[in-house]
Amino acid sequence: MTLHKTTTSYPLSPRNRVKRRHDRGFYDHDTVHGLLDASMLCHVSYVIDGQPYCTPTFFWREGTTLYWHGSSASRMLKNQSGNQRVCLTVAHLDSLVLARCGFNHSADYRAVMAFGTAYLVTEPQAKQRALVAMVDRFFPDRTASLRQSTAQEIKATSVIAMEIEQASAKIRAKGVADDDEDYELPIYAERIPVRTVLGAPESCPRLRDGVERPASLGGYSEGRLLEEALRDAYFLQYPGK
Amino acid sequence: MTLHKTTTSYPLSPRNRVKRRHDRGFYDHDTVHGLLDASMLCHVSYVIDGQPYCTPTFFWREGTTLYWHGSSASRMLKNQSGNQRVCLTVAHLDSLVLARCGFNHSADYRAVMAFGTAYLVTEPQAKQRALVAMVDRFFPDRTASLRQSTAQEIKATSVIAMEIEQASAKIRAKGVADDDEDYELPIYAERIPVRTVLGAPESCPRLRDGVERPASLGGYSEGRLLEEALRDAYFLQYPGK
Repeated sequence: MTLHKTTTSYPLSPRNRVKRRHDRGFYDHDTVHGLLDASMLCHVSYVIDGQPYCTPTFFWREGTTLYWHGSSASRMLKNQSGNQRVCLTVAHLDSLVLARCGFNHSADYRAVMAFGTAYLVTEPQAKQRALVAMVDRFFPDRTASLRQSTAQEIKATSVIAMEIEQASAKIRAKGVADDDEDYELPIYAERIPVRTVLGAPESCPRLRDGVERPASLGGYSEGRLLEEALRDAYFLQYPGK
Repeated sequence: MTLHKTTTSYPLSPRNRVKRRHDRGFYDHDTVHGLLDASMLCHVSYVIDGQPYCTPTFFWREGTTLYWHGSSASRMLKNQSGNQRVCLTVAHLDSLVLARCGFNHSADYRAVMAFGTAYLVTEPQAKQRALVAMVDRFFPDRTASLRQSTAQEIKATSVIAMEIEQASAKIRAKGVADDDEDYELPIYAERIPVRTVLGAPESCPRLRDGVERPASLGGYSEGRLLEEALRDAYFLQYPGK
């Protein structure tokens, strides 16, 4: 993997510096944001009374701000409303790696850890904008075609945001990497690729007559990589960001 | 989703009770273990000096014990050696759900959160057994065919274990679920399935002549669901557990 530097990077500190295998660490915005925008699912870590929690949730990015949402009654969101420190992580598994000794068994992966302080988005216009982005970031311009949200629905949804204070990406992409002398051994080794793909879209059986799939969903087609569809949707919704 | 009870369940407390959408919560061993065994990748949350971290890592289960490993020099493992509370989470994304209003946009998923206290596996025989399981749980009986681990490799690897004190599974599997009156609207809605599948295995280009892919890897074949291959491997290695 070649280090591809961009002019803008997240600042380094002991909190986000990749300590083990630092050759696998990246801090530039392009790498970090690219991996974030290729995922819909993240895991958020937070602490309540000394107990760590790790909650899988959906998220999206705008610039250097990450957003996620959920029920206003959720434990996670109640806790995060009060400017709590959090760590939001995204991981893509790319392969299983079977080497010639146990120690070199590994996997190819791309992961991002982002650190910041969570806060509740309360300003009505900002919250409204976020609730649109929550849908349209994944399905460009879809909100305009939907039944409008009710005041009760908006009240029942909490939006949490976090400025990325620090982040790191860690990437392994080299497949089998054995010790030099082990290549001489008559032992089988391989890389098994792993891909997350879309199945054939299943339209709701209760669609009204004449309602067709909008062309804007064309990026979500059977067999496509989920991450490609998500990245394309991101670029459509936030061109040049 | 029908609640399928088994005789054995994890105990309930405020820590693991599914609060929001409690109809989606399961606590029985079969459901929790089945979802854990269908994954290689988990996310572990832990706290250092009040800062939560969320680290993606590989893990496996034996009974009600979870194991993960890494470099003896890693920050995560050094921290977890000292009986730290952790939360280990696994999430499977099954579909994206596009509804007729923003509020009902969702996803089908299956997730487990497991709580416990992490400890370093130091007893030499237990560590040795774990280092074998780390490979053979995924690739049954593979360790016997590998170059033996050196003392240095064993020393450089830390194995962390955690008894599952509490756990919960949360499952959504209903696709589009709109408000009754919204089905009358001329709005398109669908479920887009998501699957994590294996690509064609890529044998190491530096294999010695005559070294063939062992039959025991037959479960890892192109197009198969990763979770099926992992579950099958688990049953081969730990029959009836």
